[in-house]
Amino acid sequence: MRNVVVGQSGGPSSVINSSLAGVYCRAKAMGADIVYGMRNGIQGFLEERLVDLDTVLPSNEQVRLLRKTPAAFLGSCRYKLPDPEQKPEVFEKIFGLLKKYEIKAFIYIGGNDSMDTIRKLADYGLATGSDICFVGAPKTIDNDLAETDHTPGYGSAAKFIAAMTKEAIRDEVVYSTNRTIYIMEIMGRNAGWLTAASALSRGEDCDGPDLIYLPEVPFDLASFREKVAALLEKKNNLMIAVSEGIHDASGKYICEYTDDDKAVDAFGHKQMGGTATFLTHYCEKEFGCKTRAIEFSTLQRCAAHLASLTDVNEAFQSGDKAAEAALSGRTALMATLNRESDDPYVCSIGLADVHHISNVERLVPREWITEDGSQITDDFIRYGRPLIMGESLPVMENGLPKHLVLK
Amino acid sequence: MRNVVVGQSGGPSSVINSSLAGVYCRAKAMGADIVYGMRNGIQGFLEERLVDLDTVLPSNEQVRLLRKTPAAFLGSCRYKLPDPEQKPEVFEKIFGLLKKYEIKAFIYIGGNDSMDTIRKLADYGLATGSDICFVGAPKTIDNDLAETDHTPGYGSAAKFIAAMTKEAIRDEVVYSTNRTIYIMEIMGRNAGWLTAASALSRGEDCDGPDLIYLPEVPFDLASFREKVAALLEKKNNLMIAVSEGIHDASGKYICEYTDDDKAVDAFGHKQMGGTATFLTHYCEKEFGCKTRAIEFSTLQRCAAHLASLTDVNEAFQSGDKAAEAALSGRTALMATLNRESDDPYVCSIGLADVHHISNVERLVPREWITEDGSQITDDFIRYGRPLIMGESLPVMENGLPKHLVLK
Repeated sequence: MRNVVVGQSGGPSSVINSSLAGVYCRAKAMGADIVYGMRNGIQGFLEERLVDLDTVLPSNEQVRLLRKTPAAFLGSCRYKLPDPEQKPEVFEKIFGLLKKYEIKAFIYIGGNDSMDTIRKLADYGLATGSDICFVGAPKTIDNDLAETDHTPGYGSAAKFIAAMTKEAIRDEVVYSTNRTIYIMEIMGRNAGWLTAASALSRGEDCDGPDLIYLPEVPFDLASFREKVAALLEKKNNLMIAVSEGIHDASGKYICEYTDDDKAVDAFGHKQMGGTATFLTHYCEKEFGCKTRAIEFSTLQRCAAHLASLTDVNEAFQSGDKAAEAALSGRTALMATLNRESDDPYVCSIGLADVHHISNVERLVPREWITEDGSQITDDFIRYGRPLIMGESLPVMENGLPKHLVLK
Repeated sequence: MRNVVVGQSGGPSSVINSSLAGVYCRAKAMGADIVYGMRNGIQGFLEERLVDLDTVLPSNEQVRLLRKTPAAFLGSCRYKLPDPEQKPEVFEKIFGLLKKYEIKAFIYIGGNDSMDTIRKLADYGLATGSDICFVGAPKTIDNDLAETDHTPGYGSAAKFIAAMTKEAIRDEVVYSTNRTIYIMEIMGRNAGWLTAASALSRGEDCDGPDLIYLPEVPFDLASFREKVAALLEKKNNLMIAVSEGIHDASGKYICEYTDDDKAVDAFGHKQMGGTATFLTHYCEKEFGCKTRAIEFSTLQRCAAHLASLTDVNEAFQSGDKAAEAALSGRTALMATLNRESDDPYVCSIGLADVHHISNVERLVPREWITEDGSQITDDFIRYGRPLIMGESLPVMENGLPKHLVLK
């Protein structure tokens, strides 16, 4: 028997299932007997909650639908594998199960923590003389993985953010006779890639956000105030994009900028709102105009109806590559996306040592942010544009995108 | 000269520009010399900010793009026309300008307040022996206009809400091993049509929201608590949809359920969050599980990238009908959508007396809400489904929907 097991881990994305489809198709093409899916990642594997993917993907129709279904078909988890020295019994159990199910290749689709899982399992396997191969397929809307030009999931989230930015700006400017300040809060605790994507809305028909703040540069409220005041001299309707993780020079998050004694609700909870809510209230007080906080929330990571075809395809290819590597006897690797040129956009799929990836966070280069920290340069636009190109139209049924669901 | 003037008023929608295109095309087809667009509605008209639509719509290509551009191409306003007895000078000015620009037909695209404008102008015209005709074209995502089965703008907002509900549920259930309560807040102060649309997500691949609360039925926190507790006995991941306007039996909005002395931020503002934020904090405290408030905000009214083709077409047809009526010498009317059957869906375009429309608010029928007020019945599904059918694919450029913009 030559079986494969594949899992999904960490936050959902629009294309993580396309990667799963890539793993499945390549594994079958390379003669795998059974391709098991672990439900809820390594956590479900430890509980032997496995599904034979042949049974849920009986034909190409299901595979095609899987590629267009957002979130994680197999379910996800946030389980952090311990160090093997501290808890060898966990590793003994995992390798026992791998033997029981006659697994030759273990593929994990996820971000930083998932690559840490691959690294630990691969190292343990090598140290114990196992011939099982462990390879990761990258996935994170945050786009913060090292050793890869970008990550599957980012392009589709960026496309949704840029499109909604454009549409929200259209919406705001209808009342052009009145002053308004709208502030969009976008995911990204430490890395501003998603917030930067709002700048992709720039074009002949849209100026894009007037100000864009990423966590990579400390946020200064006084300077923000000055910039907004100056902009209001020139135009009535401001759109501002902020990362949820912006913080000041001392490291304090802007969403924590409230009077602690007062910002408590009836249940004693501190401060209900987020960064955008705080800043809109600040602007309302300072400038006396209508404000609105728009939080993209989970919508930005599951809007597969507006997925980038480039992203969907690259997700598939990186799953394919990970399966190919593992079934060829290679281990401790992650599939990578290697950009060869921006225009025309050419990207090849490679492999990198997972030891260089886990626990490293890739931020937006400082030079892609303007010196004053309030805008994004054209270098980012050149980088981001190809990633949102192409339409992956959903399968529509009853007026809505149809999804493949594991019962 | 036989000129027409058209304006847009009130909140944006995904298809108000399709109605504008309908007015323009019909007016030109009926031999109108100049079709003026008023910028920012009647407010801009009073300031003589007019644009000759021939100059901005030189070919079919622009008209086609206009039909797919969200918000209000001409800009909007919230100007409420006074009563002619109180401020006759406003009416004298308007009719003076109508004479100056040789206007024969005045079309206003909007909701309740806009139909009030049409009513007042038409009545004043009739009372003063004017031969100028005033006709309204319906527009409101709120779907609360009388005398029409539904309103252009609603179908597209409903489609976006239902699609995002489905995608957000997919996103939530990936952590099926942990308890979560997500609460979506949807627009609608008095009418729950938009929130009800979240139920359209129900299907083979989705259960839809577990609880749905509309403003039509008083909200009771104790009963809500019981229902959530009972649901958590059966499943781990709850999705709840609430209208922003839900209130208790005394009329107090749920978003006002905070201790007034405490829910004040550093700037002295009362209560930052909305209804969903309040309820998530309540659930967090009561059930101790992870919660998330998702506010669709303006995204739900400007997401033309997911517009309903049915809606786009009906918006066009109602603009067309309004122009045809006014240029045929009829006044004090609004175009209406008259459903003839659900399945197959057949809808004709009619006209209704605007006096029966302005200042009337159409709510979701009580019998389309379950007796306990926490769910939507299949009657609503039969009503809503046809309105979200069909795809109006955006014109894509650089990976994003392209818009027509009036500089």
